[in-house]
Amino acid sequence: MNRALNFNAGPAVLPETVLKEAEKNWLNFNDTGMAVMELSHRSKEYETIHHQAISLLRNLLSIPDSFEVLFLQGGASLQFSMVPLNFLTEGRTGNYVLTGAWAEKALTEAEKVGKTFISASSKNQQYKAIPTGNIEISADAAYLHITSNNTIYGTQWQQFPTNARIPLVADMSSDLLSRKIHIEDFDLIYAGAQKNLGPSGVTVVIIQKKLLSESGSHLPTMLNYNTYANHNSLYNTPPTLAIYLLKLVLEWAKGLGGLTVIEQRNEEKAMILYDAIDCSEGFYLGHAEKESRSKMNVTFNLHNEETATNFLHQAKEEGFIGLNGHRSVGGCRASIYNAMPMEHVLQLAEFMKKFKKSN
Amino acid sequence: MNRALNFNAGPAVLPETVLKEAEKNWLNFNDTGMAVMELSHRSKEYETIHHQAISLLRNLLSIPDSFEVLFLQGGASLQFSMVPLNFLTEGRTGNYVLTGAWAEKALTEAEKVGKTFISASSKNQQYKAIPTGNIEISADAAYLHITSNNTIYGTQWQQFPTNARIPLVADMSSDLLSRKIHIEDFDLIYAGAQKNLGPSGVTVVIIQKKLLSESGSHLPTMLNYNTYANHNSLYNTPPTLAIYLLKLVLEWAKGLGGLTVIEQRNEEKAMILYDAIDCSEGFYLGHAEKESRSKMNVTFNLHNEETATNFLHQAKEEGFIGLNGHRSVGGCRASIYNAMPMEHVLQLAEFMKKFKKSN
Repeated sequence: MNRALNFNAGPAVLPETVLKEAEKNWLNFNDTGMAVMELSHRSKEYETIHHQAISLLRNLLSIPDSFEVLFLQGGASLQFSMVPLNFLTEGRTGNYVLTGAWAEKALTEAEKVGKTFISASSKNQQYKAIPTGNIEISADAAYLHITSNNTIYGTQWQQFPTNARIPLVADMSSDLLSRKIHIEDFDLIYAGAQKNLGPSGVTVVIIQKKLLSESGSHLPTMLNYNTYANHNSLYNTPPTLAIYLLKLVLEWAKGLGGLTVIEQRNEEKAMILYDAIDCSEGFYLGHAEKESRSKMNVTFNLHNEETATNFLHQAKEEGFIGLNGHRSVGGCRASIYNAMPMEHVLQLAEFMKKFKKSN
Repeated sequence: MNRALNFNAGPAVLPETVLKEAEKNWLNFNDTGMAVMELSHRSKEYETIHHQAISLLRNLLSIPDSFEVLFLQGGASLQFSMVPLNFLTEGRTGNYVLTGAWAEKALTEAEKVGKTFISASSKNQQYKAIPTGNIEISADAAYLHITSNNTIYGTQWQQFPTNARIPLVADMSSDLLSRKIHIEDFDLIYAGAQKNLGPSGVTVVIIQKKLLSESGSHLPTMLNYNTYANHNSLYNTPPTLAIYLLKLVLEWAKGLGGLTVIEQRNEEKAMILYDAIDCSEGFYLGHAEKESRSKMNVTFNLHNEETATNFLHQAKEEGFIGLNGHRSVGGCRASIYNAMPMEHVLQLAEFMKKFKKSN
């Protein structure tokens, strides 16, 4: 079977071995005579899947016991609201670093809940870089919120801000599990699964237990992180099939050798495409500034619009999928998450060189 | 392959043909070289799936154009909060009929938002029946909320309350698509998918367009029904795989002959089990009063506790899954949603007769 050259920004390509493992067990999971999604979420079989997914995340990311690992629904978009609803209490200020459209959306939701403060922003530079200057923290800051990787602009934090004084909250939807991180530097990490973790429909939250105690009981039950922490994310029926697929992706990641190997692979893949851009003598133009470049989303344009249109058209004809840049930025974007095979990246680089030659 | 005798209350048995259809397309959906969950939610292929799921729901349930069909996440539990957050405005009262634990949870969430009123309740009768008396409506009622089928107690509304004066909101998580309903009698219907509709992880909401205008813009974006209505449930990444599986279940339902056929099958299946109870001369005791009996969840006990334990033990040995009653009620429960094959119901009735004979 020919796998597509899938450069989608998310939902995105998943590991072929994961798909095949799920296929093998599809109709009859572990000889139960049931598909995974037919299992009761209170059954021994499902609870094992659930527990394994949590354990694998703990193991791969070296998550200490002082943190909870939770499974939610609603994607990062619901987290934009849950973070301020839980922690932006009266008299305090939600601090936000603006690095792109998703960070702006997170800020907008916080503004509905309480006071906010923009700690740093690269909006005036069309979000071509992660802000390099000082990150200003307001008085009475409830937390500092950042977006670790910006899919639309192709930028990524290379070094995270460190300020032990206030909780650090990170939207890692598009790069959690793609590189080593030091969990203790954060207080809350959230990620929709559909980039590096699995299918859409499940959100991973990693949260410091100490922070949980600040969340009030007045909240709607399903919007309170404590509900998930107190019930092992089984207060109500979780998205069992999505969590099963997440578990398979985590097993695959562990089998590869964990985050050290994955990070190295991702650096190699990104290097191949950035080299194709940088060695093109201005034929391809990277959107992000070099020191902020993302290893997950390589954004670029061509030296003129007509050629860019031709490039995207011809790429599509050759089977490359999802190379159009986000509608708000235009140009091209190659999303190369964990499951993107090296061979497909090499094929794209080859195509870029070939196209340049003939244009 | 032997399919399990799966009487789980939900997640529950799904149609075998649906599982096989999904399996066939698992690795390579429509010759795209991608699995469904690898498709971009902005792609033509996924948009077709999304549109078909909505169309099939409209068609099967005869949903008029004056209603929106929305896909959300978070299950019925999140709807318990979204209904009051959207419609329980200052000075108005959320009216609730209590018919079981889920209705109580819905009420609890509304109490966090505003004023509430219990319009009727069968709590004093251990929820053995749907309240038969008058449904009292408070002054300034925002809506009347009911739970159409009560999985734990095995009761089901046979005739819905009609009061055109105030909006009728129904949690139909466990019986939407199991019988004919007249959509125009309702203003908002919601249902977690994991009983009759598909896997867990997607919630169907059917809402009158007129009602949508009452919802305020102050709400968190993901908790405002208008967000979903204005973006065709594609504001953020939807749970694409779950919606695809929902679509397959809806195609299966249509292929069976739609709700007329499905309702008749469900009545026949329920009759077989209720007959086994009623003809047992008191060996089996139905929990619900006859006129309130659910066609989805048949709840019963045995004449003494020891025999009940033996029954559940022996049933398990013979391969029957999920027959334990909910932990809050005890006894036995056979959940027989749309996808439960008639043969499995007959096998259970046969087992009940055999067990009675030898005890």
